[in-house]
Amino acid sequence: MATIPSQNLLLPHSLSLPKPNFSHSTLITFPARSSPARAISRTDEASISSKLEPESYKITTAEDIRRRDREAKESKSLRDTWRKIQGEDDWAGLLNPMDPVLRSELIRYGELAQACYDAFDFDPFSKYCGSCRFTRHKLFDSLGIFDSGYEVARYLYATSNINLPNFFSKSRWSKVWSKNANWMGYVAVSDDVESTRRRLGRRDIAIAWRGTVTRLEWIADLKDFLKPVSGNGFRCSDPAVKAESGFLDLYTDKDTSCNFSKFSAREQVLTEVKRLVEKYGDEEDGGLDLSITVTGHSLGGALAVLSAYDVAEMGLNRTKRGKVIPVTVFTYGGPRVGNVRFKERMEELGVKVLRVVNEHDVVPKSPGLFLNERAPHALMKLAGGLPWCYCHVGEELPLDHRNSPFLKGSVDLSTAHNLEALLHLLDGYHGKGERFVLSSGRDPALVNKASDFLKEHFMVPPNWRQDANKGMVRNNDGRWIQPDRIRAEDHHAPDIHHLLSQLHHPS
Amino acid sequence: MATIPSQNLLLPHSLSLPKPNFSHSTLITFPARSSPARAISRTDEASISSKLEPESYKITTAEDIRRRDREAKESKSLRDTWRKIQGEDDWAGLLNPMDPVLRSELIRYGELAQACYDAFDFDPFSKYCGSCRFTRHKLFDSLGIFDSGYEVARYLYATSNINLPNFFSKSRWSKVWSKNANWMGYVAVSDDVESTRRRLGRRDIAIAWRGTVTRLEWIADLKDFLKPVSGNGFRCSDPAVKAESGFLDLYTDKDTSCNFSKFSAREQVLTEVKRLVEKYGDEEDGGLDLSITVTGHSLGGALAVLSAYDVAEMGLNRTKRGKVIPVTVFTYGGPRVGNVRFKERMEELGVKVLRVVNEHDVVPKSPGLFLNERAPHALMKLAGGLPWCYCHVGEELPLDHRNSPFLKGSVDLSTAHNLEALLHLLDGYHGKGERFVLSSGRDPALVNKASDFLKEHFMVPPNWRQDANKGMVRNNDGRWIQPDRIRAEDHHAPDIHHLLSQLHHPS
Repeated sequence: MATIPSQNLLLPHSLSLPKPNFSHSTLITFPARSSPARAISRTDEASISSKLEPESYKITTAEDIRRRDREAKESKSLRDTWRKIQGEDDWAGLLNPMDPVLRSELIRYGELAQACYDAFDFDPFSKYCGSCRFTRHKLFDSLGIFDSGYEVARYLYATSNINLPNFFSKSRWSKVWSKNANWMGYVAVSDDVESTRRRLGRRDIAIAWRGTVTRLEWIADLKDFLKPVSGNGFRCSDPAVKAESGFLDLYTDKDTSCNFSKFSAREQVLTEVKRLVEKYGDEEDGGLDLSITVTGHSLGGALAVLSAYDVAEMGLNRTKRGKVIPVTVFTYGGPRVGNVRFKERMEELGVKVLRVVNEHDVVPKSPGLFLNERAPHALMKLAGGLPWCYCHVGEELPLDHRNSPFLKGSVDLSTAHNLEALLHLLDGYHGKGERFVLSSGRDPALVNKASDFLKEHFMVPPNWRQDANKGMVRNNDGRWIQPDRIRAEDHHAPDIHHLLSQLHHPS
Repeated sequence: MATIPSQNLLLPHSLSLPKPNFSHSTLITFPARSSPARAISRTDEASISSKLEPESYKITTAEDIRRRDREAKESKSLRDTWRKIQGEDDWAGLLNPMDPVLRSELIRYGELAQACYDAFDFDPFSKYCGSCRFTRHKLFDSLGIFDSGYEVARYLYATSNINLPNFFSKSRWSKVWSKNANWMGYVAVSDDVESTRRRLGRRDIAIAWRGTVTRLEWIADLKDFLKPVSGNGFRCSDPAVKAESGFLDLYTDKDTSCNFSKFSAREQVLTEVKRLVEKYGDEEDGGLDLSITVTGHSLGGALAVLSAYDVAEMGLNRTKRGKVIPVTVFTYGGPRVGNVRFKERMEELGVKVLRVVNEHDVVPKSPGLFLNERAPHALMKLAGGLPWCYCHVGEELPLDHRNSPFLKGSVDLSTAHNLEALLHLLDGYHGKGERFVLSSGRDPALVNKASDFLKEHFMVPPNWRQDANKGMVRNNDGRWIQPDRIRAEDHHAPDIHHLLSQLHHPS
């Protein structure tokens, strides 16, 4: 029997997890592409889950990188450089080495896209499966994002009555908020708080589209067939401008019998952008310049590209007085969307696209795995008219999850596609061949929110994001219920008819 | 396109779930053993999950039963009848028709056993897997049981270093609160609040043991072998008194290297009962009579029987002044524990056992599926000495889940074994062949807490009991952590050595 005196039983020995006594520099700095074995041995003793304080990230061997970042941040703030950060010069010189302001903005917009997952009700046994778990005005607060600087102006819905069987979440119950609609994201606009105005240097209209992290079957489900956007109601006179038909359907289809998708996602987003540009485009006293930033992960990235193109093609990025509003797309693990002509048309319209990808993710390689922008020029020219000849748009920022000492080296398809992991990789990225050094206090535990990507010894439970009691709450009578959630305010704007008719018949 | 004016979009039509316009009597009164098909057709339109108010249970066709219950409750309260309710007369005349006070007490003690599941950390990715999620003093409050009338005096632990491989929950991590210990339940004592004293009519020492609802493989794992209790440290001079060896091991084994199980569950519970009986047994001014009630579901039922026997065999149910304290066991879905001689010895000691079972549950039929108390008397006599000849103790209250119109008719083994379902069945039970009528406002949604037993049209998610974010919380630094949970107070009492030596060498 143990001889510990009973009055000394303060904490069991097994609970005294070792303090992180490793050298800080060896934990989170890491030579790019070093072997995973080395990573494990170096971080063996660490437990970030509860013992690692943010101070642990104040490292010394990478002090050069930190200093450079700090100096860069001090010399040019977002307020002064936002047009460059939004891609005015196609991010020339900002990606390698990685510009710290751009990095932080990519994480910020990625988090706006991540909010679409965190807020989405995936539970097939919920009456509200497929909806947003929070009302519009409380979206960011409910997710613990208290300083977003944005107000959600409109929720976006799409109908599942299209040919993407594995994409939508449907309730198992028969009586639900909507049989066919799925919440797809939101339009937000930066607020008038002085610190927001000063930080952003402009008023930003942010559009975030939900994608999917699981059930990647939708990639295979893509009809993998390009069709002219002009056939889907886009204002484009050139029938050679084509996009993947599944994305087009998702963006343009509607269900007149459903209150949430009686207008297409396209109609919802265009009318809202029109309304916001009219409201803020030519403000007098203290009016700010506007920007439009569209963000999305995975299939949400495809919708981001499509909708940004659409906004520009419709001329909605132009104020009444003729000021042109820059339109920028940040996608994360996004697939190809259209053909070469589609890409050229986006360039003509001046829409800037930056695509963040994990090199081991298959989604950005789809569709068009065999015939795409990487094929020899002659072959592309020859095949340009074929319906399966896809082309990426804009700039790519390729990351490699094997460079992070926090992540498992070998993972399945959907893990390599994870958005939180991409944000973690961004946080540690400083340029090609540079060490992996986390530049912020961003918590690596977030990676496991909806994946099993962190190395086991960090002791963060996999897939830990879940609601208490699956959203059931006890009411005043002591009964467990699924509280009603859907609010009238989450429906479409009262003025959508008016705005739509203006879209169709511009004055 | 739908013609609903946009300003009328208050709630989507799909959300207007039909009001429960069925006759109340047809929803929850139900002829015993009627066909499931009829149940479905009659309750088709109902959604108890959010729309059914408690008023729905105020039915008319079963008013006779309700009135009888009410009158019975008024005429003889628990305060006056507690000795009968605790089995003084072996529950003669209380089971058929079902005595309303006994029913409500069976539900109450069942909920004390259920608390062991609701508070247990089953998550293998938790650092505290296998422990109680709450500290001792906050157990009931944390579970939302605000009026229990009990204070938890001691937590009970067992070591998993025994031959029951599928019973224990173990953490996947290497650095955990304890490698081998599992939280097994608690000893509680009714408090001094005046309403508690008046309600119970005595001071009650309640012991609750955790069992298991899932992984019923432990039944097959039972060595299915009876051995003399005297060989395991019990104070029993008759080697013919035998119990199942796996239960004996679980109850008596210890792990001297572990702070939580350096004393066996047996030593923990006996010393605590001794301490409480010494403290409350011969109180002067306004002292109450004492009762000892042991409760448990499944394997917890076996431990309840064993420990109640042990308390009585040790003579701990006797105050210094010689008053005998009644010892009662309520088990729910409990297996057989010992042989005929064990049963006889419990009867000699005056320990009263009432076993609530679902007739379709296989666990109460184990061990001893082939040779048990139901075999012909001559055969039992012949086989009495054999090591696999098991015998139930006490009275049985058989229930049938097919009698509840809320439950699916056909379910798997572990669902039929569910404790919440038993409590629901108790709530609707009024006697053999009587209609199933819920007698309290107890929420049927509780049944699905950790099962998929409710009929689908009630729209209660299956297995809905879960922690927000698997117990991860965001700390002040914005990091997601598994908060530390184990407290010194949950260790064994400082005076356990002293009490143990008194047990071994009674004065």
